[in-house]
Amino acid sequence: MTPVDSTLDLLNDPAGVLPSSAVHLGRKAVISREDIIAAALKLIGPHRSVSTLSLREVAREAGIAPNSFYRQFRDMDELAVALIDRAGRSLRQIIGEARHRATSEQSVVAGSIHAFMEQLRSDDKLLHILLCEGTVGSDAYKQAVERELSFFEDELRLDLIRLSVANKTALFEPALTAKAITRLVFAMGASALDIPAEKHGELTAQLVTMVRMIIVGTQTMAAAQIKPA
Amino acid sequence: MTPVDSTLDLLNDPAGVLPSSAVHLGRKAVISREDIIAAALKLIGPHRSVSTLSLREVAREAGIAPNSFYRQFRDMDELAVALIDRAGRSLRQIIGEARHRATSEQSVVAGSIHAFMEQLRSDDKLLHILLCEGTVGSDAYKQAVERELSFFEDELRLDLIRLSVANKTALFEPALTAKAITRLVFAMGASALDIPAEKHGELTAQLVTMVRMIIVGTQTMAAAQIKPA
Repeated sequence: MTPVDSTLDLLNDPAGVLPSSAVHLGRKAVISREDIIAAALKLIGPHRSVSTLSLREVAREAGIAPNSFYRQFRDMDELAVALIDRAGRSLRQIIGEARHRATSEQSVVAGSIHAFMEQLRSDDKLLHILLCEGTVGSDAYKQAVERELSFFEDELRLDLIRLSVANKTALFEPALTAKAITRLVFAMGASALDIPAEKHGELTAQLVTMVRMIIVGTQTMAAAQIKPA
Repeated sequence: MTPVDSTLDLLNDPAGVLPSSAVHLGRKAVISREDIIAAALKLIGPHRSVSTLSLREVAREAGIAPNSFYRQFRDMDELAVALIDRAGRSLRQIIGEARHRATSEQSVVAGSIHAFMEQLRSDDKLLHILLCEGTVGSDAYKQAVERELSFFEDELRLDLIRLSVANKTALFEPALTAKAITRLVFAMGASALDIPAEKHGELTAQLVTMVRMIIVGTQTMAAAQIKPA
């Protein structure tokens, strides 16, 4: 029995004599952060960013009074940041699994891109948030997206260094290499949200080639730099 | 004498006996597309994208009745697309001038990036539109931004080909090279909108290095491909 079911049970209205709004009200006592997050996720989509949601709308979708919202979140900014954090964590986990199977700089990138595009295809709303909230919305949203992107960059940087040591290749400015790859993949991902699913394969292939250019470039620049005199 | 001055003159109220609202009304007869575009530009900013503007708001800012809006634009979508088109044209012109002075693949990119970042620093609202409207808003907005980006990519592709012929270097998939550079620069530009001006120099240097990786990568990949057997 879920918490919601048991709450309904506690209302103890087996004959259904209470009006349905009262049953509805009964749910609200146990509203959780999860319920509010789920309501917000239901409302957002390709043409609806978190920054355009109103507290009133989210409360209505969650079936609570606007005031009950404040038991879980200070304001809409805090909810948006929670959504962005969750989006980043979820995507990092998916891509992290793809990465663990990689044995070369090229395969770590190809694996990550495939995992990323697969997630895009699955129409994951959390990924939408991460791709779309960075350019609009309050400073708090933008900083939250920047923070998530920098976590990605950091993990990718460490993976690239690990692989370049294992494969005896070199990297020119690993942090910048990781940043260029991350930003390019996210930018292409954001535009992929609007293309038909049958074109995703082509876009993925393009993206793999683009990122290959960055990897070959950073390796060539590093090799030129450490060339014996 | 501007059209607005002459309209005021036609009111023929040298003694100022008409209430000021009547004088104001007099202006509205000659409201132009430019006036409406100027009003929209006044309203948008770092936390306000075109997609969140209402027709009513724009009309109020332009000092016209909402109905008069329709004499110039079919709807808000048409206004937004006009703004995006103008933003693209304006930036292409600025960057085109920087490009004409370039003599190598690296300098065409460095020149373009410097011109781009200078425009960013000047707090050009048109550039904001181009950087921020791609990820939110209606399909019409997104398509308009995609169209402008593809114009950039095309011009950069032609410049890269011209320079690689002149300098006897080679390019691996010139269209993809141009696309990778354009998308990366726009993505980094969008995040630069939020950083303090004193950090723009550092970001510009980072961006030049990142794009250098792409150029060195595409040249290295092309050289490997055409290596004599």
